[in-house]
Amino acid sequence: MKKSFGPQTLIFPTPVWCVGSYDKEGKPNIMTIAWGGICCSTPPCLTISLRKTRYTYENILERGAYTVSVPPEKYAAEADYFGIVSGRDENKFQKTGLTPTRSKLVDAPYVEEFHMVLECKLLHHYEIGIHTQFIGEIMDVKVDESVLDEDGKPAILLVSPLVYETKSHFYHGIGGQIGKAFDIGRKFG
Amino acid sequence: MKKSFGPQTLIFPTPVWCVGSYDKEGKPNIMTIAWGGICCSTPPCLTISLRKTRYTYENILERGAYTVSVPPEKYAAEADYFGIVSGRDENKFQKTGLTPTRSKLVDAPYVEEFHMVLECKLLHHYEIGIHTQFIGEIMDVKVDESVLDEDGKPAILLVSPLVYETKSHFYHGIGGQIGKAFDIGRKFG
Repeated sequence: MKKSFGPQTLIFPTPVWCVGSYDKEGKPNIMTIAWGGICCSTPPCLTISLRKTRYTYENILERGAYTVSVPPEKYAAEADYFGIVSGRDENKFQKTGLTPTRSKLVDAPYVEEFHMVLECKLLHHYEIGIHTQFIGEIMDVKVDESVLDEDGKPAILLVSPLVYETKSHFYHGIGGQIGKAFDIGRKFG
Repeated sequence: MKKSFGPQTLIFPTPVWCVGSYDKEGKPNIMTIAWGGICCSTPPCLTISLRKTRYTYENILERGAYTVSVPPEKYAAEADYFGIVSGRDENKFQKTGLTPTRSKLVDAPYVEEFHMVLECKLLHHYEIGIHTQFIGEIMDVKVDESVLDEDGKPAILLVSPLVYETKSHFYHGIGGQIGKAFDIGRKFG
C-alpha cells in the first residue's frame, strides 16, 4: 500500500556535492548542494540548482564558471558545514583548513583534499521557480590516483561519496556492488 | 596526486531511476536513466535528460507527463533490462512481469512493485547538445508504507535505491549512516 506524500522534493538517491566559486574580490567560496545531476553526455554537462539569495549565485554568473568537488565520507562534517554557513559571513576554506586550488581551466576553485573534482564552464541558466538551474560544461574531471581501481577507473567505494537522505536529513555512504550494468538485465531477453 | 580524465560525464553518485510514459497507442513504457536530479524546491521539480532517439522522448512530449519509479535492490536486474531494450521493440512490463499502474494525476504509468514513485507534469524542455532536458513538476510522491521509518518518513535503507558507478558500470546499494545533516558541521562554528 502506497502512502501519498504530496508534491515535494523527495526522491532517493540525491548527491552531496560542494560547489566552488570566486566572489568579486577573488575570495574562494564553497557551498554544499543536493539538487543537481548530469544533464547531457555531449557536450558533457552537469546541472546544479541554487536559490538567487545564495552567495554562490552571483559568483557563478560573474565568473561564468563553477567547480564541483565530491566530498568523501571522511570530510562529511566539512561538507555539512559548507551547507550551513554563507560565504558572505565566513571564509569556509579557512574555517575548515581545506585548500582552495585554483582551476587552470575555469575561473573557480576546487577542494584539493577531495578525491574527485569537476571543472565546469557556465553554458546556460534557467529560472525554475525559486531555484535557478545552472548548466555547466564539464571541462575536466580530476580524480586522485589513490582512489583508482586496478583498471585505472575511479572506484566508487574508494571515492566514498555521500548520499543525502531527504526528509530524514542523514548522510549515507555507498553500499556493496549489486550487479553489472548492461548485463544483469539480459536474462529478460 | 590528481589524474585528469578529460571532459566527460564522470561523477559520483548518480541515480538509477525508471521513467514511465505512455506511447500514442497507450502502451506503457519504462526506461532507466542515470542523468537527472531535483532542480527546484518550489514548485518541486525533477529533471531527467533523454536523447531524442529514445522511445520515451516522443511519449513525454505528447503526453506532457512522466513518472519516475525508484528501483529497489531486489529489482536491479529488471531496472537494468529497462535500460538495455527499447520500448519500440518490446513491452518491457510484460517481459519482466512488473505492473504498470496508471497515475491518477498525470498521463503516465509507474511501476507498482517499486517502493517510491514520483508523478511529474512536464513544465519545460531544453535542448542541451545530444540530450534534451525535461523539467517536470512533481505532483505527488508515493511511498510504500512498508519502507517508512518509525517517524513515518521514507527510510533510504528500506527503499534500497541503486547508485550507478559510472565508468565501471556497476550498480551499488546504499551504505550506513555517516552523520546528521545540518548538524555534524556545526563544530566548525
